[in-house]
Amino acid sequence: MIADRMKVMLGASSAIRAMFEEGKKIAKIYGKENVYDFSLGNPSVPAPQKVKESFIDVIEHTDDITLHGYMNNSGFESVRESIAESINKKFGTAFSCKNIVMTVGAAGGLNVVLRAILNPDDEVIMIAPFFGEYLNYVANSFGKSVIVPPNPPTFQPDLEAFEKALTNRTKAVIINTPNNPTGVVYSEETLKKLSEILDKKSKENKQAIYLISDEPYRELAYDGVEVPYVTKYYANTIVGYSYSKSLSLPGERIGYLVIPDEAEDFENLASACNVATRILGFVNAPSLQQLVIQKCLDETSDISVYDKNRELLYNSLTEYGFECIKPQGAFYLFVKCPIDETQFVEKAKQLRLLLVGGKSFACEGYVRLAYCVSYDTVVNSLPQFKQLAKETLNK
Amino acid sequence: MIADRMKVMLGASSAIRAMFEEGKKIAKIYGKENVYDFSLGNPSVPAPQKVKESFIDVIEHTDDITLHGYMNNSGFESVRESIAESINKKFGTAFSCKNIVMTVGAAGGLNVVLRAILNPDDEVIMIAPFFGEYLNYVANSFGKSVIVPPNPPTFQPDLEAFEKALTNRTKAVIINTPNNPTGVVYSEETLKKLSEILDKKSKENKQAIYLISDEPYRELAYDGVEVPYVTKYYANTIVGYSYSKSLSLPGERIGYLVIPDEAEDFENLASACNVATRILGFVNAPSLQQLVIQKCLDETSDISVYDKNRELLYNSLTEYGFECIKPQGAFYLFVKCPIDETQFVEKAKQLRLLLVGGKSFACEGYVRLAYCVSYDTVVNSLPQFKQLAKETLNK
Repeated sequence: MIADRMKVMLGASSAIRAMFEEGKKIAKIYGKENVYDFSLGNPSVPAPQKVKESFIDVIEHTDDITLHGYMNNSGFESVRESIAESINKKFGTAFSCKNIVMTVGAAGGLNVVLRAILNPDDEVIMIAPFFGEYLNYVANSFGKSVIVPPNPPTFQPDLEAFEKALTNRTKAVIINTPNNPTGVVYSEETLKKLSEILDKKSKENKQAIYLISDEPYRELAYDGVEVPYVTKYYANTIVGYSYSKSLSLPGERIGYLVIPDEAEDFENLASACNVATRILGFVNAPSLQQLVIQKCLDETSDISVYDKNRELLYNSLTEYGFECIKPQGAFYLFVKCPIDETQFVEKAKQLRLLLVGGKSFACEGYVRLAYCVSYDTVVNSLPQFKQLAKETLNK
Repeated sequence: MIADRMKVMLGASSAIRAMFEEGKKIAKIYGKENVYDFSLGNPSVPAPQKVKESFIDVIEHTDDITLHGYMNNSGFESVRESIAESINKKFGTAFSCKNIVMTVGAAGGLNVVLRAILNPDDEVIMIAPFFGEYLNYVANSFGKSVIVPPNPPTFQPDLEAFEKALTNRTKAVIINTPNNPTGVVYSEETLKKLSEILDKKSKENKQAIYLISDEPYRELAYDGVEVPYVTKYYANTIVGYSYSKSLSLPGERIGYLVIPDEAEDFENLASACNVATRILGFVNAPSLQQLVIQKCLDETSDISVYDKNRELLYNSLTEYGFECIKPQGAFYLFVKCPIDETQFVEKAKQLRLLLVGGKSFACEGYVRLAYCVSYDTVVNSLPQFKQLAKETLNK
């Protein structure tokens, strides 16, 4: 007999699984190359060559006990120092190893920081559309999720609605920029205003509201757009980072948290993240992966591949009549459904296009396309999208 | 402002840290080689050569996208199949990949299964002495820990006390054999009786009580002692395994759960563990580590080193007059304090012997010695233990 709340989750999970199984069935009938799977955020670009070299180098030149042994739950000090220096060089900050906690990816990091700060029923604000797992992460640490409605067509946060959502129980806000699922990058202006609102409310509450900036897509930005470094705008920022997308290592589960000195209760906060890493059962980020990324801090996968997909897909879909904002980052396109979302997803599937409905991101009436696929997949999918437009637009 | 419950934990954590810092201070004064640190369960024996070879082999011969990409949250199917076959070969079971969930070490695995089964305030029984982190893992999933008192000097569970601890809210029992901190292996007789009690109570409750067998020390058994495979005695067993000790890979965070077909609600239970792996932020066990252990299923580190330490330490300490049971497994010795525990730990520290008090394992009046240290450390520590005996015995 499993837990009651797991039963609810299995229902949702089995819907996704059903989609996945149906995808496989279609692939069997039409051939795998004729199914256009835009449903998963799994990088299609291989890791840089330097990653492979570093794996070999670390394994061959590190003594076994250090390489595979336990270290401080927050990670190897030298790795954390190297990461701090790399951030400082890029963004003009002044972090050191004590500001960095190594995590089991960004998902691990978010769970760690939420466990560190949340008392039962503390409120955590998220701005729709957002990565649906945030709801689970907040629930894991006994918090309550509060959702700010989406603000189409720009998908910059509606700051008035945001301000209204804050209460004296608000303990944290999660933002994600470049955003999954819209690809939108929050502007410097947005971040400044958001910070002002948070400063004012923190003063009123006589307790800090932490701004948790989930940044797995930081390195995936196009057209030379700047992704502002959030700690510069708001003292109580905690950054969650992951190498899943920037180095194409999602299966390896490696990332980090940045906790600035200026954050309220800094010493305790850093210690609490250390303890949370242990008690949640992560214990530490995988040791080998820590030592490898230390050698790859200036590397990224070849994101020009995603950029090329983005241009073709955005230009084609808007030409066919679909509405969507041009993404400035990440590898997602968030398209408005001309008809009911569930029907649209179903019609797309009949055309062998696998998309994820906006409901999964608290934003009904949209679909997300993950364009971390081969360029050929994009090219070959276009006639299908054209057909989808024909069948659903102006109805 | 961190969470209230984290403040309590930071207090406990800073006591350990204080001990650690003091250890470093003593090391500075007397030299590192003159401090005898028996406090940590960090394997001192390097991983087998085959592990290193397998890391290189997997990195050089697996395509990047498979090697570093996402897979099913439960892990690579082929890895799970290989593990199932390896268990079947060793223990005559009949598992397949669907019975295995890859986890971020045993700590990750325990958190996953507890999340899968616990409703709020469900009771989880643990038999003292036990690894103190179990209390946190149960609390993470909103459960209540129920402690069965220790049963010295054999430390086989007191089955009468165990039966009394069961209620109609009992959802699970955690056992750990070979045991941390005693090194005791639960006998076949113990397991049979324990299973009978659980079968009876499950019937009475009209719902299964799951027996979670935490087995990171399974491979570390001495004098040819058999460690019974628990699924053979009780259908509703879930095994948690880790390669931290058997392959000396604690930092790499790799292990698995075994969920037998016979377990009540099997299909849902396996799916719930899959979902729990995702929502707790593990997402999946590190992909590279999964593929490496697949190639090392018949390997163990050289445990004869621990055995040698065990013999010398046990024989010497009992000769000096200390009381303890001879461990049959793991790499711990659990020694009775002749004086108050806190004072004993302090006196030991003054003699440069770093030990952990039994309170950390819900068993006051004892100390744990982790003998996963070099043989020289054991040899050189003996005069200090002799002195400790002189200062504390017959007082």
